[in-house]
This record gives sequence, structure tokens and C-alpha cells, in this order.
Amino acid sequence: MLGLMQNHPLLISALIDFAERYHRDGEIVSRRVEGDMHRYTWADAARRSRQLAHALDAIEVRPGERVGTLAWNGYRHLELYYGVSGSGRVIHTINPRLLPEQIAWIINHAEDQALCFDMTFLPIVQGIHKHCPAVRHWIALCDGDRLPQDSGIANLISYESWIAGRPTAYAWPRLDENTASGMCYTSGTTGNPKAALYSHRSTVLHAYAIALPDSMGLSARDAALPVVPMFHVNAWGMPYAAAMVGCKLVFPGPALDGKSVYELIEAEGVTVATGVPTVWQMLLTHMAANKLRFGALQRTVIGGAAAPPAMIDTFRNDYGIEVLHAWGMTETSPIGSVCTLQNKHLSLPADEQLKLRMKQGRAVFGIDMKIVDPNGNEIAWGTGVSGDLYVRGPWILASYYKGEGGDPLRGGWFPTGDVATIDADGFMQITDRTKDVIKSGGEWISSIDIENIAMAHPAIAMAACIGMPHPKWDERPIVAVVVKPGQEVTREQLLAFYEGKVAKWQTPDDVVFMDAIPLGATGKMLKTKLREQLKDYKLPA
Amino acid sequence: MLGLMQNHPLLISALIDFAERYHRDGEIVSRRVEGDMHRYTWADAARRSRQLAHALDAIEVRPGERVGTLAWNGYRHLELYYGVSGSGRVIHTINPRLLPEQIAWIINHAEDQALCFDMTFLPIVQGIHKHCPAVRHWIALCDGDRLPQDSGIANLISYESWIAGRPTAYAWPRLDENTASGMCYTSGTTGNPKAALYSHRSTVLHAYAIALPDSMGLSARDAALPVVPMFHVNAWGMPYAAAMVGCKLVFPGPALDGKSVYELIEAEGVTVATGVPTVWQMLLTHMAANKLRFGALQRTVIGGAAAPPAMIDTFRNDYGIEVLHAWGMTETSPIGSVCTLQNKHLSLPADEQLKLRMKQGRAVFGIDMKIVDPNGNEIAWGTGVSGDLYVRGPWILASYYKGEGGDPLRGGWFPTGDVATIDADGFMQITDRTKDVIKSGGEWISSIDIENIAMAHPAIAMAACIGMPHPKWDERPIVAVVVKPGQEVTREQLLAFYEGKVAKWQTPDDVVFMDAIPLGATGKMLKTKLREQLKDYKLPA
Repeated sequence: MLGLMQNHPLLISALIDFAERYHRDGEIVSRRVEGDMHRYTWADAARRSRQLAHALDAIEVRPGERVGTLAWNGYRHLELYYGVSGSGRVIHTINPRLLPEQIAWIINHAEDQALCFDMTFLPIVQGIHKHCPAVRHWIALCDGDRLPQDSGIANLISYESWIAGRPTAYAWPRLDENTASGMCYTSGTTGNPKAALYSHRSTVLHAYAIALPDSMGLSARDAALPVVPMFHVNAWGMPYAAAMVGCKLVFPGPALDGKSVYELIEAEGVTVATGVPTVWQMLLTHMAANKLRFGALQRTVIGGAAAPPAMIDTFRNDYGIEVLHAWGMTETSPIGSVCTLQNKHLSLPADEQLKLRMKQGRAVFGIDMKIVDPNGNEIAWGTGVSGDLYVRGPWILASYYKGEGGDPLRGGWFPTGDVATIDADGFMQITDRTKDVIKSGGEWISSIDIENIAMAHPAIAMAACIGMPHPKWDERPIVAVVVKPGQEVTREQLLAFYEGKVAKWQTPDDVVFMDAIPLGATGKMLKTKLREQLKDYKLPA
Repeated sequence: MLGLMQNHPLLISALIDFAERYHRDGEIVSRRVEGDMHRYTWADAARRSRQLAHALDAIEVRPGERVGTLAWNGYRHLELYYGVSGSGRVIHTINPRLLPEQIAWIINHAEDQALCFDMTFLPIVQGIHKHCPAVRHWIALCDGDRLPQDSGIANLISYESWIAGRPTAYAWPRLDENTASGMCYTSGTTGNPKAALYSHRSTVLHAYAIALPDSMGLSARDAALPVVPMFHVNAWGMPYAAAMVGCKLVFPGPALDGKSVYELIEAEGVTVATGVPTVWQMLLTHMAANKLRFGALQRTVIGGAAAPPAMIDTFRNDYGIEVLHAWGMTETSPIGSVCTLQNKHLSLPADEQLKLRMKQGRAVFGIDMKIVDPNGNEIAWGTGVSGDLYVRGPWILASYYKGEGGDPLRGGWFPTGDVATIDADGFMQITDRTKDVIKSGGEWISSIDIENIAMAHPAIAMAACIGMPHPKWDERPIVAVVVKPGQEVTREQLLAFYEGKVAKWQTPDDVVFMDAIPLGATGKMLKTKLREQLKDYKLPA
């Protein structure tokens, strides 16, 4: 017997309709590529999203077809999120930090019909447009009078002239909630990138989950700043959750340096900000150097890579900011876990609480997690033993676009490629990437543990631990480090710094000093490239 | 094109699985009918819910069949919520405050196969069991040795012996998420009661929505006390939302008096409590009389009837407790709106904020609201004009069980029978029930406004305003009041109290002093009955 409740599909268009109706004058503030600040409201965003939907109708992008974006976080990108998906097309956000040939490959693989780009990325588009013959329209996210005269790009139009004068009413289609809404390619450190294809249902459920008090705790009282890019797994879903709760939304545009982010936080009364550790490191460095304090900021959400313990500590103890350590990936929409405490933890001493906060935390409802041994058997929680992290839930990928890579699931679970422990309370902690774990004498050494210790040394700016082949132990860890400007540390001093922090056999065999650690397009360390760079390196005898 | 995310139906069994896995030792504390306190954990609740599912299999209750409950808020009732719905049956919670013949009528109409009751309600069951021939099993929620020897009820068993020794593992069925999960009859002040039939989908979405920071803001750090009964629209969904976030859950059993509720709040460190105004009135009276303060309590959710402004004021100003004024009904699962402020309101003066908090608030995402004029045309927001409140959303009723009453919807919207205003920001305020509005000289007078003013008088314990026929004005309001013990107020004093608070033509024509105002089974004033009692009343000339 079925229930007798109303049938309303979970649709992205319902989010923007809701924000328009219940948070009409809620602010959306954007630092633009043009350099100035742009301010408008949820009602404006909704109206222009509908004009955009008409514009897409006019160029005959059909339901389900992809519209690519190469854009910073800003109000026009937000309109694309709603106008493209709301009208039944699929928004395909592209990471502009990828190599041009990768971008062209992705655009062609996705079969993007139109490509919307910030003027920052005009050089990229000029380089690739001839290699993307299926793209029927190149749309510059600017006013008509800013369009370059001789871009060399045929069919180039400006976003503003494209949507201008279109009707402001639009009947959003009542789609099946499982209809595809968005697409994001993985960074593809090995092989060609593969795409996750999100649905309206997965997006709306994810928005509910991340707005919960045990996730980001988003409310209409918040002013939210997604520093994490909208081309990076939908800025972790914040553009959707913000409409769901009607909070103020603040977009940083291309200015992600510490000074710009700090000024934006203060000027707009930001209460919650999300970003990867490297962004926060720039912010904290700027603040320390200039002896600055936060005004309204209450919490930061840190994900994309493990937050160094020292960073969590600094935010909390020096600035009184709650750090929400989160975990996820392109294939998980992305939020899988957020670290918030349970009732029973509130009576723990501060240092015990801090230890818990170092973990990536608990699954939010909808997600289930497990860790498995090499045979795929579940490892019991609370043993301290780590294993491959598997996840499942309605916003976890089932298969990649076009079936690339075959069936990724194992018995209904998605293997994340991360190695983790899960404690007795279900708090998960990433210990490594499966491919980065160092196997030494039959035991595993977590490269992240080794890196975190080096990062805690006052002279170290960045650290990457990799395993090197060893005749007796199979592999031994070494740590590649970048020293902070004006600081000094010797190999012996850094190795001595490990004493008492890890077991002797886990201490790296060597330190390699480098000018820079190679980073990928999402700011993560590229250990494959580091291994290439160190291919002639030999372990000390 | 469909998205490529995993397919997981939204199921009630997933809630209890989640609570067991991620909040294993989270506490559930119940004051029992037996008088003592019972303590166990989410893992215990999950295990016993599965044993209960086996017990239902054993007595061959088929998928979709109803299992009735006549029970207070407690752990066994919680197990019924999960064991019955999780295994694919429908839990039918019955209000024990209804008349026995109404209870029998409801049981027969619902075709309950089994009926689980707290021993408090044995007399009711003894009175009705012969009139409910379809009920195959009467199950007393007690230990086997507490079962009365000669109850007169054939097929009477105890819950504990029924589930004892059953396997603790159970494969919850993977149901269509639109499968019926729960049933609740309206109080039926006119005609026979009609039932809402909730689904797994509506229940889980409602749980997400009420846990949001703009609703009840439930987290794993909370200790939640549903004073509102589990037979009263699922205790406003808290038993489900509590599992979703893994908070501590505190059940008051049958002890709803001010002293008992206060002691429970303090003993268990309750942070959030939900209830109707009458319960809070008892609590506040007890606290004032004994000069008590709250310890951990942070917020109360008030719904079921409009909270008198004086109550909101007392909670906030005298005790520092945030009041969340909420609105809903059986047909809306029940939460439709909760009053939480927006970012821009935080800079308003305290009295302006308080004025907003008097309203029933904004829709939570999923719900949409409108007010319509007598012709069904939408009334613009922010005009101050009131109209009939219509709502829609995935946890709003589409039709009643067995199609009773025909199609209740108007163009896809459910007409609530409430009259409300909606301000420019979407804050809704109930001004009356459609049938209680007083039409005087072509204008409407809100009976609730008149009652709130009387209630603000220090001598008045309860007030009910009704319209009386008038030869010239069609209707004129009178106010029936109950004076507080030991207090005195004259007709003239009370009428003078209205001066400056409402327009002269809205002031009641008369005051009727009564010993009691008739209340219905859910604690709401029964104005139909009051009108009957006053059928010989004549307005002063």
C-alpha cells in the first residue's frame, strides 16, 4: 500500500523558486573578474536564471545536453547552476587549471553544446576552440561591450546580450527527479578523467544533508563564502544548500589570496567559509603577518585534503573559529562525512575533543561507510586497523559517464581509493590514499602522518612523503619538503623532529629539499609527478 | 538523460540502521508507565525493533497492514515506530484521549490487525475490544509477569514475552519509498475522523527538514524531549529526526505536569523540548511558583496551537530560552513552518525581533504556502490582508485514507482551514481558523487576537473568543474566560484592558466567566462545544 502524500519531485528548480519566494531580498555578493563588487538578491538570481533558460531554448540546447562552464565563483555562474539544470539541461563545470588539451578533451568527451567562460579564461578558449568542433556557442560571461573585437572565435557572444530582454517568467519542467543535472570530471591523476553525473534528486538530498547542524549547519542567519571553486564538485554543494536555507552568499571570484579572502570575510560579515587547506594556509599566513582578527566568522569547513592538525589548532585556539573537517570526492557529490562531536563528547577535556576534530568525522545521514581488508571483508570499527574506505548512498556515484572504467562498485559500495580508520563511534579518519601508502616490511606507513609531522615543524612550508623501493623492506618512506622563506632546517634536525612522534621504523629514511612540490589542478599534491622527478633518487645506504 | 548516482530509497529502516551504526551508545531515556526510569541506547532500540519485526512476521501481519498503538512517549513506542514501519507494515498511532467509541471506530476503520497499548489504557481496551473483532492480537506494552490474569480480553499477550528470544538480525525489506509507513487520524471536530497516510519518503524528507538549523536545529549534541505525544502526528517527527542525527532522546511517559517535565529536563540535560502551549503553561507556572531556573535547556518548539505572546516573552526574557514557534497539522506531517529569523533581522531591535517571533514563521524547504481570497485567488504577501492558508509539498497530504471526504486539494494545494497573513519576507501568521473568524459588519475579527489580549491579563488563565449572532453586524465577538485561582477581574476591567490594543469595533461586546473551556483530545479548545454550551446566551443590548 502506498502512502497518500503529495508527489513532488526533488528538483533544482524548486531550490531557486524557494529562495526567490522566501528569501527575496537575501543578498548575493560577488567579486567580479572585472575587479569590482557586484550585489544583487535571490530574486534577481531567480529572474535571470529564468532568462537564461529562455536563452538556452533559443539556441536549441536540448534536454539532457551539456553546457560547459569555465568560471570562477560568481553570480553568473550561480545563474548557470540554476538556469541550465532547472530547465532540464546538464551543467558541466570544468576545472580551468587543467591543461588546455585536457580541457578540450573533456569538452569533447562531454559533448558540450555551449561553453560559458569568464574573460580570465579567454586565452584558454582561444587555444582550444578549434579543437572543440561540437561546441556551437562560446559565451563570454561579460557585458556586450566587453566582448573582444577580434577574438578569433567565431560564434562568440556575451552572456549579458544573450540573456538580455528575454522573458522573466519560465515554466520549469517537472522532471523525473533522477534526471541528470550536473557533471564533473575527476582530476584524473591516472589515465583520462572520468565524469560523475549528478541528478536532481542526489543534489537536493545532498543539500539537505550538508545544511544539517551536524554538517555545515547552514541557516538563513548565515553569510556563506564558498572559497572552494564552483568548478570543484559544485563548490561542495553550497550554491544549492544556500538557496535551500536562503542564506547570504558571498563569491570570491578569482581572488583567492589571503588578503582578498580576509577582506571579503570582514566586509561581508561572512559567518561560514569553505575551502581546501592551501587556501586557509594563505589566509592564516596573511592574518598572522598583519596581526588581524575575525569579526563575524564562526566556522570554516576544510576538505579536499586532510587539514593539518596545526591548522585546526590555530583556527580554534588563536581565532576561536570552529573547524569542520570534512571528507568527500567528486564521486560523492562531494560531502561524505563532517567532523562534529556527539553529546557524550562535550564533557571531554579540550585536547581529547581536538583529537577527535582531527578526524574527517561521521557520515551524514544518507551515507554509509565501511573499511575493508585486501580481501574485501569489512574491518570492525574501533580496532585502530585501517582499510580501504568504501561508501554508499543516494549521492554516491553508481557508474561514470559513458560507462568509462566499467562498473566501479563492489557489492553496491563505491571504493574511494582512500585508506582510513573508523573508531568505535563511527568517526572516520583518512590515513592515506591507497596508492600512497608505504608498505615497509609487511606493515603500512601512512604518508599523511609523516607529512603532518613535517608540517608541524616551524621551518617547513610543505611536505610530501613517498615510498622508495628498498631491497629488504620493499619500501621505505622519504619526505620531500619545501622550507619556508627565511627559515632553515637540516636533514638531521628534521629527522630528529620525528622522535617520540612515530615509531622508529616509521621515521623517514631521508629528507629531500625541494623548491616546490608539484600540485595538480585542484591544489592536491601530485605524488605521481613527484615520483617521476625523483626517479633517479637513491635511498641512503 | 538520467544521472548516474546510486539508487537508495528513502526508508525509515535506514534511519534506525544509521542511528545504530553511528550513534550506537547514544542514550534513550524513558519515564515508564510503571513509574521508574528506563535507559538504553540506539543500538538497543535497533536490536529490539528487529526482534519486533520478527514478532510481527510470527503473527502474520502482512505488508501494508496496520498495527495500532495506544501509548505514551517511551522506548517501546519508539520500537513500534521502527519495527512496524521498517518491516513494511503501517503504524497507526491512536489518540487515547478520544472517546472510547471514537477509538473503536478508528481501529475498525483502519482495520488494525494488532493493537499495542500501555497498561494505562487497559480500561479503554477492556471497554472496546469486543467492538473491534478484526483485531487479532491485543498486546500490552509490559513484561509478561505484569499481564493481568483476568482481563477479559482473549488473545492478550505482553509485548516483552512476544518479542523475547526472537532473532536480533532482520533483513529490512527494500521497499518502494512511497510505501505507506504511518497513519494518523485527524481530531475530527466535525464529522468522523479522517486519516492521513504517511510514506517512507514523506517521513524521511520531513525528518531532514525539521532537523535543519531553520527548523528545530537538531544535532548529535542535543538531548531532545518530545513532550508532544507520539500519538499526536508522530510527536512532530522527532522520533525520526532524532535517529537521523543521533541525538539523545528523552521520553516523558504519561507525566506531563509541570513538575515532572521540569525534573526530567533538568535530570537529563535536555537541550530542546517540543510541546503545545498548555504543556508549557503548566511548566512555566510550576517554575514561577518554585522560583526554578533551567540548566541545559536552549530552546522550546511550540506548536499545535498559537503560542500566546506572553509565553514567548516569558521563555525568552525570564529564562533565556529560544522559542521556535511552529505551525502544522496532521495533514502536513506536521511541520509546515518554523519561525526563525533571517540574516537581515539580526540587526533589528529586540522588540522588533520579538514581533517576528510571534508569527508561525517561514516554510521549510519542501513546503510552499500561499493565502487565497474567497474566490481562491492568491493574495499578495506583505499587504497585511489575511486569507485562507493553502500548502503543498512532499509531506503534505494528497488525499485521506479510503478517499474519505473526496479530493481535498484545490489545484494541487491543500486548504488548511486556517486563516493567515504572510508578510513580505514570507513569515506566516495564523490569525484564526476559517470557521472561527468573526464576521462583523463586513470586516473580519480574529478570535485569536482577542484571546491573546485576554490571556495577557494577569488574572486570566484561559480565554476563548466566539462570534454571537447580531441583528445589525451579523456577528459580534464575546470572550469566555477562566479566571486564575485566587485572582479576580470584573467584566468592565477586562473590557477596559482592550483599550488601545485593538480598534474599538473589534473589542468584545461581553465577557462570560466560566469554570472551564471545553478542550478536545489534543488539548485544543473546542469552540463548537463552547457554542453549544452558550446556545441560550444573549448579547447585551
